Amino acid sequence: MTSTRDDQMRMAAFLNAGPGGVCGWRHPGAELNFFSPAYYQHIARVLEDGLFDLLFIPDSQTVPRAFGDSIEINVRHGVGTPRLEPLTVLSVLAPGTTNLGLVATASTGFQEPYGLARQLSTLDHLTDGRAGWNIVTSFQDAEAQNYSLDKLPSRAERYERAHEFLELIAQLWDSWEDGALGIDRDLGTFARPEKVHEINHVGEHFKVRGPLGIPRSPQGYPVLVQAGASPQGRDFAARWADVIFASHESLESAVAFYADVKSRAQAFGRDPDHIKILTAATTVIGATPEEALALHHEFEQLVPPEAGLSRLAYHIDYDLSKLDLDAPLPDLDVPGVSGHWDEVVEYARRENATARQVGQWYGARTEGNLVGSVTQVADRMEEWFTGRACDGFMIQPTHPPVPFEQVTTLVIPELQRRGLFRSEYTGLTLRDNLGIPRAPSGEWRLRSGAVAVPA
Amino acid sequence: MTSTRDDQMRMAAFLNAGPGGVCGWRHPGAELNFFSPAYYQHIARVLEDGLFDLLFIPDSQTVPRAFGDSIEINVRHGVGTPRLEPLTVLSVLAPGTTNLGLVATASTGFQEPYGLARQLSTLDHLTDGRAGWNIVTSFQDAEAQNYSLDKLPSRAERYERAHEFLELIAQLWDSWEDGALGIDRDLGTFARPEKVHEINHVGEHFKVRGPLGIPRSPQGYPVLVQAGASPQGRDFAARWADVIFASHESLESAVAFYADVKSRAQAFGRDPDHIKILTAATTVIGATPEEALALHHEFEQLVPPEAGLSRLAYHIDYDLSKLDLDAPLPDLDVPGVSGHWDEVVEYARRENATARQVGQWYGARTEGNLVGSVTQVADRMEEWFTGRACDGFMIQPTHPPVPFEQVTTLVIPELQRRGLFRSEYTGLTLRDNLGIPRAPSGEWRLRSGAVAVPA
Repeated sequence: MTSTRDDQMRMAAFLNAGPGGVCGWRHPGAELNFFSPAYYQHIARVLEDGLFDLLFIPDSQTVPRAFGDSIEINVRHGVGTPRLEPLTVLSVLAPGTTNLGLVATASTGFQEPYGLARQLSTLDHLTDGRAGWNIVTSFQDAEAQNYSLDKLPSRAERYERAHEFLELIAQLWDSWEDGALGIDRDLGTFARPEKVHEINHVGEHFKVRGPLGIPRSPQGYPVLVQAGASPQGRDFAARWADVIFASHESLESAVAFYADVKSRAQAFGRDPDHIKILTAATTVIGATPEEALALHHEFEQLVPPEAGLSRLAYHIDYDLSKLDLDAPLPDLDVPGVSGHWDEVVEYARRENATARQVGQWYGARTEGNLVGSVTQVADRMEEWFTGRACDGFMIQPTHPPVPFEQVTTLVIPELQRRGLFRSEYTGLTLRDNLGIPRAPSGEWRLRSGAVAVPA
Repeated sequence: MTSTRDDQMRMAAFLNAGPGGVCGWRHPGAELNFFSPAYYQHIARVLEDGLFDLLFIPDSQTVPRAFGDSIEINVRHGVGTPRLEPLTVLSVLAPGTTNLGLVATASTGFQEPYGLARQLSTLDHLTDGRAGWNIVTSFQDAEAQNYSLDKLPSRAERYERAHEFLELIAQLWDSWEDGALGIDRDLGTFARPEKVHEINHVGEHFKVRGPLGIPRSPQGYPVLVQAGASPQGRDFAARWADVIFASHESLESAVAFYADVKSRAQAFGRDPDHIKILTAATTVIGATPEEALALHHEFEQLVPPEAGLSRLAYHIDYDLSKLDLDAPLPDLDVPGVSGHWDEVVEYARRENATARQVGQWYGARTEGNLVGSVTQVADRMEEWFTGRACDGFMIQPTHPPVPFEQVTTLVIPELQRRGLFRSEYTGLTLRDNLGIPRAPSGEWRLRSGAVAVPA
């Protein structure tokens, strides 16, 4: 296969600031020094060697407790906990890197816009324009319970708040115009007051006077990343996001999602090429297809069944702690991600699996069907990319740092040979590398819908 | 003079993450690259060469607007603005430093305990125990106006909230017992659930279930720094602080403050030697006393009168924007720091000064009477230290990085010759270097007053 497309794949790395996945840390190749900068610095170096666009750190404001409202299984097996704070981890990585984008997850549910605007702007300044923000609205009541609430607001309310949050934070980032600084030792003037503005935002959730106490940052706005799959989430992402992170069961659903989100963005007056859609990709690479399958089987063996079921319970938002491990799964109507549950039911029927087997299988579940040889993995990536199922991939590692090292040393050279991936960093900022423009001052008006889309 | 004391001076550096003081940035020796990591990295290297204990970054959640409720003067002259976010700046410094303590200012008025606990714990882990927190309650309504409030709560309410905040955040830091981690690849166990606890805090201001998703950090609690001078502030600091930052008009008031705070701490059941009191110190050093006075005069000339008055207005919390610059000062009853105002009145009478002259003088005002030759500065420091006016100094630089370079290359060698300052770093953590113990689990009970002081 040869690409006929003139643009190139984007590559991102998904990395928990702690153990990732379900017990991948048990694999002998996994590094375990999650509380040392060396762990993150090594991975960042690997990613820059591979010319990755960005490192993305997910987050949660709680130790997961989806399994019997208890933290026990997750703490015992290191599933989703512990987890360092992403912005701090990425700031520690900043001085040792030169091109890698640094994308931190932060919640519009629990942060204050003024404080978060300062943190992200500071990181964007101190990295010369490599900061990004993965915008989440948070989805677990257990997170709310660490922030003086008993339950989360409804999804609709969370997205309303997120929309106001974005409108507000973008105005804060614009509150010093480009060119507001003008340092002159002789005159004793540091900045131009006529280019620094209060924002006087009064909304449903926030009241903020401004201005921010920081000049406009190198990228204008840090790169905005979002992963909403619901209709509300898609609209939010199509309005606000520069990068969309998606997960799909099939090429067909990915192609449909891609077309849908890009057309929503266009309807909001945005250039669809300026929104990059990255698909979750778990590579399991072997010298031969058989070796890759064997490696995948190894991962299944590392998953304690309860740990895998706890992960599934978290995704489908349904307590599975009372299941008989040696019986088949019952029929359930799940409130959470129903796509994941459908996949589980299909697997369980096909294999006539017990709950125990489902737990192990689910804990080692991979994204994107990328279990195979280097050629198979590259073929599959090319198929998705050229088929407009995505603009690139977010590598979700089974046992870091190994999959990042494999992608960098094996897969990326193959993609480069096919003309699908850059051979050097060409831009200065993360926006440059992603191929999206610096956010102009006032861009929030377009994205928020405050100005009408030109006909 | 020779010290008879067996312990040694502590040395800290006060650094705005932006222009500091009033127009010191105009001096030709000042560096101006506040938005580049190089600015902070250079200063951190100088401080580690000088064996400083810590770097302290102050903060404010607003562009100052004490002068006619306008930001104009402050923006024009770079007074108190711009200002990067301290935790991000210090995290960027972490990997390039090995011994320096990193102390960030954060407000109990505008942060959420769960989020701040995560950030500080993460920094403490990733620096192997060099994180510190300067606890402020915030004192300007303009800050509240960036956080959905019209005005700040009263001082009493702010301190009540701060006390609850500390009780809560310390419990979160304790929520994973020491030894809760126990990574075993063969067994597939990562941590011991019986050593990880919910905190179930329900208070006046916060309701937090816990646990934190991060194991207990190297120092137990990051070093807690506080600067309250009011009776409420002193009690709060005597309870909670490991380091107290103070500013004094005279040796006598410093000695009285020192004795008062240490005895308050003892009454709360704490070892007074485990609380280090640092006094604000602005060094203005010349080859001769006359050269130092001339340099100080140069700084006065750099201060636009309105900028100095804006600074004074901020300190005394009184709008001075309507003054006739060429008339003497009127009599005022000021709501803010009356000590500063008394000092101003004394100067204005003595010199028969106009408001314009007061502005210039106040803008270049120094702390600690440290204008002089190296010997004079060292004498004065020795006098304060041996006289139990302080346990060390917080250097407030006129025009960074120069004063830090002078203290490191000139003053510290002199203090070392006198046996008053360390000749190498001896500890691993900031607590080690300060000579205060690691916080044991449950320490919050003693500090909060939740357990009675043993008779």
